[in-house]
Amino acid sequence: MENIQDRFNSLWHKWKNDELTFNEMIEKIKSLFVEDMGFANLDIDRKRRRGFPEAIMAEGKILVDLKKIIGKLFDRNEEIVLITKVKKDIAKELCDDFPDLIYKERAKVLYYQEKVPERLGKISLITAGSADIPVAEEARVTAEIRGSYIEPLYDVGIAGIHRLYLNREKFQNANAGIVIAGMEGALPSFVAGLVDYPIIAVPTSVGYGANLNGLVALLGMINSCVPGVSVVNVDNGYGAGYIASMINRKIEGRG
Amino acid sequence: MENIQDRFNSLWHKWKNDELTFNEMIEKIKSLFVEDMGFANLDIDRKRRRGFPEAIMAEGKILVDLKKIIGKLFDRNEEIVLITKVKKDIAKELCDDFPDLIYKERAKVLYYQEKVPERLGKISLITAGSADIPVAEEARVTAEIRGSYIEPLYDVGIAGIHRLYLNREKFQNANAGIVIAGMEGALPSFVAGLVDYPIIAVPTSVGYGANLNGLVALLGMINSCVPGVSVVNVDNGYGAGYIASMINRKIEGRG
Amino acid sequence: MENIQDRFNSLWHKWKNDELTFNEMIEKIKSLFVEDMGFANLDIDRKRRRGFPEAIMAEGKILVDLKKIIGKLFDRNEEIVLITKVKKDIAKELCDDFPDLIYKERAKVLYYQEKVPERLGKISLITAGSADIPVAEEARVTAEIRGSYIEPLYDVGIAGIHRLYLNREKFQNANAGIVIAGMEGALPSFVAGLVDYPIIAVPTSVGYGANLNGLVALLGMINSCVPGVSVVNVDNGYGAGYIASMINRKIEGRG
Amino acid sequence: MENIQDRFNSLWHKWKNDELTFNEMIEKIKSLFVEDMGFANLDIDRKRRRGFPEAIMAEGKILVDLKKIIGKLFDRNEEIVLITKVKKDIAKELCDDFPDLIYKERAKVLYYQEKVPERLGKISLITAGSADIPVAEEARVTAEIRGSYIEPLYDVGIAGIHRLYLNREKFQNANAGIVIAGMEGALPSFVAGLVDYPIIAVPTSVGYGANLNGLVALLGMINSCVPGVSVVNVDNGYGAGYIASMINRKIEGRG
Amino acid sequence: MENIQDRFNSLWHKWKNDELTFNEMIEKIKSLFVEDMGFANLDIDRKRRRGFPEAIMAEGKILVDLKKIIGKLFDRNEEIVLITKVKKDIAKELCDDFPDLIYKERAKVLYYQEKVPERLGKISLITAGSADIPVAEEARVTAEIRGSYIEPLYDVGIAGIHRLYLNREKFQNANAGIVIAGMEGALPSFVAGLVDYPIIAVPTSVGYGANLNGLVALLGMINSCVPGVSVVNVDNGYGAGYIASMINRKIEGRG
Amino acid sequence: MENIQDRFNSLWHKWKNDELTFNEMIEKIKSLFVEDMGFANLDIDRKRRRGFPEAIMAEGKILVDLKKIIGKLFDRNEEIVLITKVKKDIAKELCDDFPDLIYKERAKVLYYQEKVPERLGKISLITAGSADIPVAEEARVTAEIRGSYIEPLYDVGIAGIHRLYLNREKFQNANAGIVIAGMEGALPSFVAGLVDYPIIAVPTSVGYGANLNGLVALLGMINSCVPGVSVVNVDNGYGAGYIASMINRKIEGRG
Amino acid sequence: MENIQDRFNSLWHKWKNDELTFNEMIEKIKSLFVEDMGFANLDIDRKRRRGFPEAIMAEGKILVDLKKIIGKLFDRNEEIVLITKVKKDIAKELCDDFPDLIYKERAKVLYYQEKVPERLGKISLITAGSADIPVAEEARVTAEIRGSYIEPLYDVGIAGIHRLYLNREKFQNANAGIVIAGMEGALPSFVAGLVDYPIIAVPTSVGYGANLNGLVALLGMINSCVPGVSVVNVDNGYGAGYIASMINRKIEGRG
Amino acid sequence: MENIQDRFNSLWHKWKNDELTFNEMIEKIKSLFVEDMGFANLDIDRKRRRGFPEAIMAEGKILVDLKKIIGKLFDRNEEIVLITKVKKDIAKELCDDFPDLIYKERAKVLYYQEKVPERLGKISLITAGSADIPVAEEARVTAEIRGSYIEPLYDVGIAGIHRLYLNREKFQNANAGIVIAGMEGALPSFVAGLVDYPIIAVPTSVGYGANLNGLVALLGMINSCVPGVSVVNVDNGYGAGYIASMINRKIEGRG
Repeated sequence: MENIQDRFNSLWHKWKNDELTFNEMIEKIKSLFVEDMGFANLDIDRKRRRGFPEAIMAEGKILVDLKKIIGKLFDRNEEIVLITKVKKDIAKELCDDFPDLIYKERAKVLYYQEKVPERLGKISLITAGSADIPVAEEARVTAEIRGSYIEPLYDVGIAGIHRLYLNREKFQNANAGIVIAGMEGALPSFVAGLVDYPIIAVPTSVGYGANLNGLVALLGMINSCVPGVSVVNVDNGYGAGYIASMINRKIEGRG
Repeated sequence: MENIQDRFNSLWHKWKNDELTFNEMIEKIKSLFVEDMGFANLDIDRKRRRGFPEAIMAEGKILVDLKKIIGKLFDRNEEIVLITKVKKDIAKELCDDFPDLIYKERAKVLYYQEKVPERLGKISLITAGSADIPVAEEARVTAEIRGSYIEPLYDVGIAGIHRLYLNREKFQNANAGIVIAGMEGALPSFVAGLVDYPIIAVPTSVGYGANLNGLVALLGMINSCVPGVSVVNVDNGYGAGYIASMINRKIEGRG
Repeated sequence: MENIQDRFNSLWHKWKNDELTFNEMIEKIKSLFVEDMGFANLDIDRKRRRGFPEAIMAEGKILVDLKKIIGKLFDRNEEIVLITKVKKDIAKELCDDFPDLIYKERAKVLYYQEKVPERLGKISLITAGSADIPVAEEARVTAEIRGSYIEPLYDVGIAGIHRLYLNREKFQNANAGIVIAGMEGALPSFVAGLVDYPIIAVPTSVGYGANLNGLVALLGMINSCVPGVSVVNVDNGYGAGYIASMINRKIEGRG
Repeated sequence: MENIQDRFNSLWHKWKNDELTFNEMIEKIKSLFVEDMGFANLDIDRKRRRGFPEAIMAEGKILVDLKKIIGKLFDRNEEIVLITKVKKDIAKELCDDFPDLIYKERAKVLYYQEKVPERLGKISLITAGSADIPVAEEARVTAEIRGSYIEPLYDVGIAGIHRLYLNREKFQNANAGIVIAGMEGALPSFVAGLVDYPIIAVPTSVGYGANLNGLVALLGMINSCVPGVSVVNVDNGYGAGYIASMINRKIEGRG
Repeated sequence: MENIQDRFNSLWHKWKNDELTFNEMIEKIKSLFVEDMGFANLDIDRKRRRGFPEAIMAEGKILVDLKKIIGKLFDRNEEIVLITKVKKDIAKELCDDFPDLIYKERAKVLYYQEKVPERLGKISLITAGSADIPVAEEARVTAEIRGSYIEPLYDVGIAGIHRLYLNREKFQNANAGIVIAGMEGALPSFVAGLVDYPIIAVPTSVGYGANLNGLVALLGMINSCVPGVSVVNVDNGYGAGYIASMINRKIEGRG
Repeated sequence: MENIQDRFNSLWHKWKNDELTFNEMIEKIKSLFVEDMGFANLDIDRKRRRGFPEAIMAEGKILVDLKKIIGKLFDRNEEIVLITKVKKDIAKELCDDFPDLIYKERAKVLYYQEKVPERLGKISLITAGSADIPVAEEARVTAEIRGSYIEPLYDVGIAGIHRLYLNREKFQNANAGIVIAGMEGALPSFVAGLVDYPIIAVPTSVGYGANLNGLVALLGMINSCVPGVSVVNVDNGYGAGYIASMINRKIEGRG
Repeated sequence: MENIQDRFNSLWHKWKNDELTFNEMIEKIKSLFVEDMGFANLDIDRKRRRGFPEAIMAEGKILVDLKKIIGKLFDRNEEIVLITKVKKDIAKELCDDFPDLIYKERAKVLYYQEKVPERLGKISLITAGSADIPVAEEARVTAEIRGSYIEPLYDVGIAGIHRLYLNREKFQNANAGIVIAGMEGALPSFVAGLVDYPIIAVPTSVGYGANLNGLVALLGMINSCVPGVSVVNVDNGYGAGYIASMINRKIEGRG
Repeated sequence: MENIQDRFNSLWHKWKNDELTFNEMIEKIKSLFVEDMGFANLDIDRKRRRGFPEAIMAEGKILVDLKKIIGKLFDRNEEIVLITKVKKDIAKELCDDFPDLIYKERAKVLYYQEKVPERLGKISLITAGSADIPVAEEARVTAEIRGSYIEPLYDVGIAGIHRLYLNREKFQNANAGIVIAGMEGALPSFVAGLVDYPIIAVPTSVGYGANLNGLVALLGMINSCVPGVSVVNVDNGYGAGYIASMINRKIEGRG
């Protein structure tokens, strides 16, 4: 595919050479960046700008709109289509219409990928409990699609921290780490203290009582006494997978 | 219809001239302002005072009361009847009893309008995402009923802000703007920085995790570093449409 | 002064006609919009874009930086220089260096205005208590500089609401209203219920105990049961004056 | 019925005169004050101590326990049995077992009263909206059972405050007032400013968006700028009716 | 002094009889209710309406304004002048100018009272700790000025609740009670469980750590499991004294 | 069973004597501490380290994982299997598969215990209301399994505190106490003031309105003015039973 | 000293035998329990009831009151006098008047102890950072006065958790542990996972940014995923020392 | 310097070969990892483990302790000594004692570095306002010490976003970005939408009113609708510089 900068310059120069009027040039530029669907404006320039196309969050969207957006993405022959926070029944309806989509139930992720990339560079993916796994799996799909190698280590929270220690080889020598925890959210600080790579901390709403639906875990992680920890939203596995991939791809020379 | 001030004065002078006792005067004055329904006191003076009759919020009211209030408004031959936050099943029941009502499903608004006003003066109506559209549509109906011209621009949030830029002509040269966003709620500040008219910011509960059901978006908008932004309640499309209309009508010389 | 669009086009066409290289064009465009001071990037395009130049908030800036910014504004012969949240001792230091500046002590505002504009269009300015006056005065200076006529009515809170009623003529027939209150913040709702113009509500930190430094007033105003109220930040008199002026200028045909 | 102090003294003196051992005395004293049901300890002394027997909050109790408690109260021939926060289906089950109970659906109150007391002394009962009526009705039943005369005035919130003014005779000359409001919760301050009796303010969870389920209304009322307002919990109509009755009975010389 | 209703009627009838124009009547009516001082509008009708003149909160007002307001009150020959939240140095300055004022240092209250009223009717005044005494003393002055008899009982918190029990005669047989506590704020519930009169609970900011400056005590009191407790703002001794006096005066037949 | 320290030393010495390679030693050590199930890493060393095996919280785990974990525990012949926060329908499914499990419905606890221990040392277990009993029962099962004697005293909250006093013998002379309350959460402070042993306070979500789902009770307990009170999470009966048992076992010489 | 129960019984029997009137008996009983100082009611029964006399918190008390209370305690020949949260300048003033008092500056504790008790039973006292030491020292003095042996281990937070591991012998084999941390407050969970005794967790206000003055640490500890942790107020070293001592004394057979 | 693993193995093998007892081995191992100073346990292993030695936060530490720690670090010949959050007067005192320290006043950072590293790899460093510069400078020093090249771009917030656009070349083609903003905190989302590298967002306490000291900015950033943003604590420039350096060093092949 022709480089966008070239197409952009080409349009400018056509205007410069009076082959296009100013308005014609603007309209053509517009169509390089946005797909206007009335109820939605797809950011079709995102892959060029950020290295990865726009993902769709299913939550809060009605089914008919979801179908229109996904249909448009397939029409545009996007290499990757990624939809997050998809409940099982919605997933079923969407898979009926778009049989190329794959549903990962624990991760609540639907995706299509034209060709599976080689997975390079290690990202450690650690959860405090087994109830945190759905968030971890969302992160995993996100990062694997982007060609990262994921090393999972689940249910090694601080109630029995030797579970972490005794699996040290699993999370040493990585390019980035994703650490996921609910309740007091202490695990990311702990892992960060042992490694030389950045930790993306993901609080989860796992817990009960005064956990404030994950806000306590989030604020705990934000107040980490260990440098090297940065934090994304509660249950935001997608965001963590995205950032870790970005870092990993740069280190592996692909970013 | 005879002017209320005249009727008021007329009653006062009847009392002054001893054609009415003090108590008779008070009772007659009362009936100009309030319709006492026992469980509700309709503010029937609101149109005179504020330019627009009282709207009814369906949420929190039981069906039988809603029906009585709407019935009374039709009995009084109100030119406009507007009911907000109406769920689909309630809407169906009300439309069965009052077939003149029109239901806008996305907006969750029921309304009746005797004659459709000419739509003058432009109000821009911008959403960050497509999940914010229901709130936008509530604002739109509210403002259109009052004779404002609405220019919608949906799903142009800051994740791909060129979507906003490339549609600049849609929101330039307006009298007022309504900007609607969930999550971090940054879009209103952004739009405000580009225009010379007031922005009514509407936070929405769209998002997840630590969005505190829209409170984060609300407080973000309140702390806007851009002057020209004022804020209404989370998901309060009606309020935003109301204020923007007020401004628009004054500018168009109708207010 | 030559129109910016013309200068912009002129530069584009110089590039189109090869009188400028692309980089030379970009540098010249840049200088139309931004004044780069290293520690600050002045938005010198704001007046064109928004109708009013950038104001400077003194709070959080060190004195030496303030002086540099103000000096630059005077160097650029700006018609208006406005600095808010200026404590008395800082004001004194700045006035020593820039004797054209005028200090409004209650408002904590410093300003310079080349020529005083005619004050057209009425904006009502109402406070609940006398402790809210500093915030009101900040709004007043902001709006008067922009050529609005302000009608103040101070200390008429709901503890004795007849004080408001008996001064009804002061706030009727305005283009916009600014209503300022601390504690429970109820006054804006109340005023809004009586008028047909938009109310900009300003919560203040006035009060004690569980007022949460004005957050209670803010949330009360946000939850107003009266349509027509929008809210700015706690103690943000500047923002309220700015918005009310915007509305007023549009109505008066100057905006 | 014999006075409890007499029975208490009688027991003490029996011990003093060696007609009872110390332990026998304590056991007999205990039975004057507590009915031990294993899972519940009924405070059967409350009527003597506080003038009104213990009410039962249905919420949070399982049906079988509710039945046991109510059965015990009927067994003890209590003159009044009062159960609050009873959902309709639970009420039906309880009425089946205890046909003497009367259910007030709006108030969600179940009660039995041996003989209806004369209703003396006026308590004004005012709501901001019609959605606040259930809480008002809970207060009303509570106070009427205790022999207070209730003067209701519903749906007179500050969006059209003339509705309150024009009904001034309804809330003047009372012994106490209960004022109920959701959203910004401003009505109690307003009423308090007009009367010379204490106002019990009841915040409700009525509203939406950033109303924090009534917490905003509560804090608004707490920060009232008008002396004479005290506040009970969100939706606590029972508590407000209780306090207003206490005051009313003292004034009427019955307390 | 002539009754206000009479003077009001007299003015109305003068207008009715054309002895006054409408505007002259309004001006004269206005002067019965409000003293306009520019920066303040004194509510001079409050005594008639509510039984007690407006008190002045010193906090948040500048000295020069305080002096003007107090001067005006003395000029008007008010029988009572009450200023709350007055720091010692401000009090000194004010006493220098107005030597009739009395300063209660612990209560931080300044007041003048023409003649000391007989103190009738008992109000119990109980604090959890000795650090709560300043708030109690504010309540005490407020209530004593209004002719209530105060029975104080200080430092009897729940850490040693026998201190309360063994002083039972001090708080039995009262018309109303004020109970003041910081930290967890449990004392009001406790006292309320023992008496048959209403308890006004005053949270204080006494405590440390996660007491949230009294908000925890406030919310604890609001959630009291004991009916008969209503709550005022943190440290609001004035408000509590005001309400208790209102109740007391009604019971004593003076209200 | 051979002591773990011995097995650990034995492995170390085998490596020291070259009977094992370093890696072989590490693998064997690992298997003493962790049971790796892929989605879960069981902390099989916990009993040795802490005196009690890991309990399983059912909430947040899917049924198939729960079954795998429980199956593994039975396979390992654990003497105690304890699962908390188990809803009735889940309990039924699990009991079908593992008929040795016993379900305590009020406590929402499932457990298996090889042999019932003698119950020594008294722990008092007190609730404010009957709605707090489920949390109490969770604590009770937890502590009884560990061989503690529990003395329950339910529904003796501060609304009628004589219910506590008159049952003083039930909670005197214990080794530790668990006090459970919702709403304002005052009971633990109260009990602590009367005893010479530590009180574990458990806030519950019992209440309504501004109870913030138990956070108010929690913060109230944290701010207790009575030393000797420490607090666990809202509704955390398990945690309270665990701590009280720990203390009790140490005192009884078993810990 | 004669046993209080004996003195109590003796008084009861004197009344029983008519050697005392009822009122005389009550007055004499009162003097066994409370020392009424007007502004304070000393709980002089606390030592008997709880094993340790009342401590005085200096914060919030004025100097003159502090001196009166301390004077009274010395007059009563209390074996222990303990004053907490004493700033240096206040301490100096108090030591001038009461030279027997000893001031621990880091702990901000003043105390007097007639004879130093033998220190038995080990309590581990661990801090995350060196900035947490003042709180630890408050706990230490409190517990040492009561005859506990304290084993301190400071500055071993999770940023370098091997500092804890390598000092394992310091905190193994204790009767109770106090673990103190600010920021995210993760250390108590961590220590609890390694030991078989109860951990009293003390959050501190150490940290910055969104630490909410220790509330984040507190809520993190409350949500600990490790059973065996209970929590006291932010910076409440005294409370933690008190509880740990209680447990320790019971285990050592002194409680 | 000899490799730590080698020294560790050497000690183990000395024990294996009976040249050391077990306890001697442990003591020697300990001294490789921790420097025990009594009030502090320096983590002297951190450089090996994480690539960078422990930094010291001055806030919350007393001067004498700071001096001891810094002295120890110099004694140990650390190549880098970094102290953050150092107020000017403290800095002066420390520089007097340790003249090798350099103080960066805006950054409030004190540091010593044996030899200045080459600065490779670009990290963009962007602030919304000029008041955010101190936090940016803290990040800058942190990252430059670690050998990163920093490209600063200050005061380009969304009120005039063209300031960012027109400086696009400054932040394109970086390895990581640090974006710093107060108030609504929208800038990081905005920048992230334009780049293909990870953004570390730093909220600041810049702002006023309801900014909750930076918590609003923090939560806004956490709720970013743009993937690629992770967040550190309010005003935590050090943490952001640390993470960005980690990423940068890995990409540059030095990490």
